[in-house]
Amino acid sequence: MPPTNPARRQALTDAAIELLASSGAHGLTHRAVEKQADLPPGTASNYFRSREALLIAAAERIAELHHADTDRATDRATDRATDGSAGQPTTLADLWTESLLTAATTLRTRYLAIFELQLEATRRPALASALADLQDTSSQITAAHHDKLGLTIAREKIPALIALYGGALFTLVTAPPDSVTRDLVRHMAQAMVHGCATPRHPAEGER
Amino acid sequence: MPPTNPARRQALTDAAIELLASSGAHGLTHRAVEKQADLPPGTASNYFRSREALLIAAAERIAELHHADTDRATDRATDRATDGSAGQPTTLADLWTESLLTAATTLRTRYLAIFELQLEATRRPALASALADLQDTSSQITAAHHDKLGLTIAREKIPALIALYGGALFTLVTAPPDSVTRDLVRHMAQAMVHGCATPRHPAEGER
Repeated sequence: MPPTNPARRQALTDAAIELLASSGAHGLTHRAVEKQADLPPGTASNYFRSREALLIAAAERIAELHHADTDRATDRATDRATDGSAGQPTTLADLWTESLLTAATTLRTRYLAIFELQLEATRRPALASALADLQDTSSQITAAHHDKLGLTIAREKIPALIALYGGALFTLVTAPPDSVTRDLVRHMAQAMVHGCATPRHPAEGER
Repeated sequence: MPPTNPARRQALTDAAIELLASSGAHGLTHRAVEKQADLPPGTASNYFRSREALLIAAAERIAELHHADTDRATDRATDRATDGSAGQPTTLADLWTESLLTAATTLRTRYLAIFELQLEATRRPALASALADLQDTSSQITAAHHDKLGLTIAREKIPALIALYGGALFTLVTAPPDSVTRDLVRHMAQAMVHGCATPRHPAEGER
């Protein structure tokens, strides 16, 4: 019977995320994960039969944590808009500025890990397929958030918006930490959100 | 005396770029580079004293190739604008669509390699410092291209624009190749360019 202690499984997955960020995809082995989680030899392979299973579990856990955060941020923005306590309404660009800043600083390890996995996936079809499934779920969740926030960004632009968000985050987590300023992040968030909301015609500055 | 055969140095650097894309940063060793370039043992360490020197040389070569391509694209767009032969003027969004599509398909190996280096740089200060220098040069070259093309995107938005471009490219080269369609790339390019050109006020769709 496979082991089913959820806390232990999660400790192993969280250790895998730490290792991906600190040592890269190559550093992620069953033994390294056990050491990082301070668990006895053999524990990791009880929960994850292969190295690939471990990589996929790490990706799923990061997606779960990411969605929990965006759910909370969406709820907070919706509450502020409806309880009348707010001054200025929270715009999507504001939400993205906060989300990108937190992701690139406090949560940097988590996102470094997912980008290691994205590069590793170019060499591992099973991981690529798992990431594509997570991406589909992510698109649906994003569309639901947009509905909840009353946004009118065209549905066909959501894949571009998600691709831009992920890419912007890659640039930010790999940039020298002191170059990640609130101004830079706000410029990026505003550009992405306004750009996706802008009707397609040559705008000022684009000649 | 250090060896100074430029063709051999370039063969080693190009082999390093191939290896970064196919095996990740961890796969880049002097011996692997020699094998890939079909050169005798010891050649790589004659040219690159350390593994770090090899990583930095690969980054510099990618930047050099990238700038040669963007120089050519800028010249072509400028020629079309001035020789009167063109119908529609080439917009920055058009230039970016072509550039991103080529980078994510024909030149995918080159850009996978630079993203491996960007992640590796989060663990190697000397590589991070070399990449930061390349980034500064890149900002200056981009500003010069904008002048040449007669673009009026505000100077203070160029770092955000470059950060978005790099990030978008990361998303595209790590995405499943069949998901990289011209439509997706065009939406992304238009959003980034229009977004950076749009004055800062809540736009339609952003509520």
